[in-house]
Amino acid sequence: MSSAIPSGAATTTVEVCIPFSDIDGMGIVHHANYACYLERGRVAWLEEHDQPYKDYIAQGKNFAVTNLEIHYHSPARFADTVRVTTWLQWVRGASLRIAYALFCEDRLLITGATEHVLVDGDGRPRRIPKERREKIAGFAIEAPPSN
Amino acid sequence: MSSAIPSGAATTTVEVCIPFSDIDGMGIVHHANYACYLERGRVAWLEEHDQPYKDYIAQGKNFAVTNLEIHYHSPARFADTVRVTTWLQWVRGASLRIAYALFCEDRLLITGATEHVLVDGDGRPRRIPKERREKIAGFAIEAPPSN
Amino acid sequence: MSSAIPSGAATTTVEVCIPFSDIDGMGIVHHANYACYLERGRVAWLEEHDQPYKDYIAQGKNFAVTNLEIHYHSPARFADTVRVTTWLQWVRGASLRIAYALFCEDRLLITGATEHVLVDGDGRPRRIPKERREKIAGFAIEAPPSN
Amino acid sequence: MSSAIPSGAATTTVEVCIPFSDIDGMGIVHHANYACYLERGRVAWLEEHDQPYKDYIAQGKNFAVTNLEIHYHSPARFADTVRVTTWLQWVRGASLRIAYALFCEDRLLITGATEHVLVDGDGRPRRIPKERREKIAGFAIEAPPSN
Repeated sequence: MSSAIPSGAATTTVEVCIPFSDIDGMGIVHHANYACYLERGRVAWLEEHDQPYKDYIAQGKNFAVTNLEIHYHSPARFADTVRVTTWLQWVRGASLRIAYALFCEDRLLITGATEHVLVDGDGRPRRIPKERREKIAGFAIEAPPSN
Repeated sequence: MSSAIPSGAATTTVEVCIPFSDIDGMGIVHHANYACYLERGRVAWLEEHDQPYKDYIAQGKNFAVTNLEIHYHSPARFADTVRVTTWLQWVRGASLRIAYALFCEDRLLITGATEHVLVDGDGRPRRIPKERREKIAGFAIEAPPSN
Repeated sequence: MSSAIPSGAATTTVEVCIPFSDIDGMGIVHHANYACYLERGRVAWLEEHDQPYKDYIAQGKNFAVTNLEIHYHSPARFADTVRVTTWLQWVRGASLRIAYALFCEDRLLITGATEHVLVDGDGRPRRIPKERREKIAGFAIEAPPSN
Repeated sequence: MSSAIPSGAATTTVEVCIPFSDIDGMGIVHHANYACYLERGRVAWLEEHDQPYKDYIAQGKNFAVTNLEIHYHSPARFADTVRVTTWLQWVRGASLRIAYALFCEDRLLITGATEHVLVDGDGRPRRIPKERREKIAGFAIEAPPSN
């Protein structure tokens, strides 16, 4: 189970109880909904390790999604309790990469990652404020790609 | 614009008019919704090049999603008309990979890909019927990974 | 079929092709999605009889929903083509009521209504501009409640 | 605050923390999402006062929605904690009506109600099993309409 989560990563785990409205015609969680579960994990990680996401919004900023990868290992079903574990992979000037592993009990459901760029209200990239970036850089498990 | 779509690919293009309900707090389409737009493109591709997806469902089969990758280039907004162009990357015994490019007029919004395995009602992988697989293999733009 | 639609109403009809992502664990469209289909009908009605909804948004205004009623007569399924017919029931200073009937071929799926108040960017009620209100009042099928 | 909830009703309350993905272009929870919050309240009420909804599904049954009414009093925003309080209004042979009040702290957000009919896998109405119906009838706050 833990092999999906890098040892030493600064993780945050939230639980999602699967609502009926997320179930599709195959009787499992529709695959698009996992992007929203990742978002909840990300918001919780930021709250614990950085600042509440509301504070970014209050400053007219958002972490726009630039990349999304999800690998589906096993499906979740109605009323399952899913644990979303989130950690920071890397951070650089205006962007960061966050990784996720979702489990239902001991069963691995999902591994995934999202990349983000901080943007202002007009969607223009903005550098992550230095004090914030330095704070969270300590939680990154790897160096950012050289770009 | 066409550089996102491989020349010679057997494509299907559908239009999505962005509804207000898909817009998020940033004033753009919430990133999770694109997974649903890809799904619409995929269903249309299958209908044109393979068979209506309803026929798979009628046989108790579904193409479960095993991988999802989305690269976000530019956002779509309320009332935009988005063109979803879809093609088959590869197909093998029980699985296939489909690729997508989304445009709004000349602006590239999204490139992405999904991988699928054909499953029965219990979620068990099933070989794609030989006559179906041979039919669509002619539309694939590359050989499947050896795996 | 037409008994659900008042004769003489100034209607707009849009088609929704039901995507797989809107199907729930019962194999039918999840009931919450109809609120989004009504929204599409409403936006199309405004575009035809009033002005594009984008123009309201550009002025920092929105028609916030204050009431929603949906009566479910028959379910829609994957790949059904649903016709959403929309008309204006009444309009007064800052609010209006819109009604809907949804059909799949000759089968009545849904009747419903929504009430709205025009709000500014802070959510405060604002009078519908006189020239707009007078224009659409001619399409209303009944007088507003006295209130 | 309590005036929206009938005194003496057998209520169940669940909390929903508003995710970013439920926020719309007005910066508030999109109105369709409340139908899903009501569903969560309903599932929790059944679990506490009747049986887990999974047990209905395991028997091939579902409470299909036949009516939905939502009155929007005040909007919820990102990261708000919303309390969904649910109770049974009435029950009869194959159907029941459930009512809801949603609050954020002391602020009333939503009042609403849903009506349901128990259906089998083919969507045909089925009588609620006598022992179940008698059990929950004791929690109803009013007699069913004569119909």
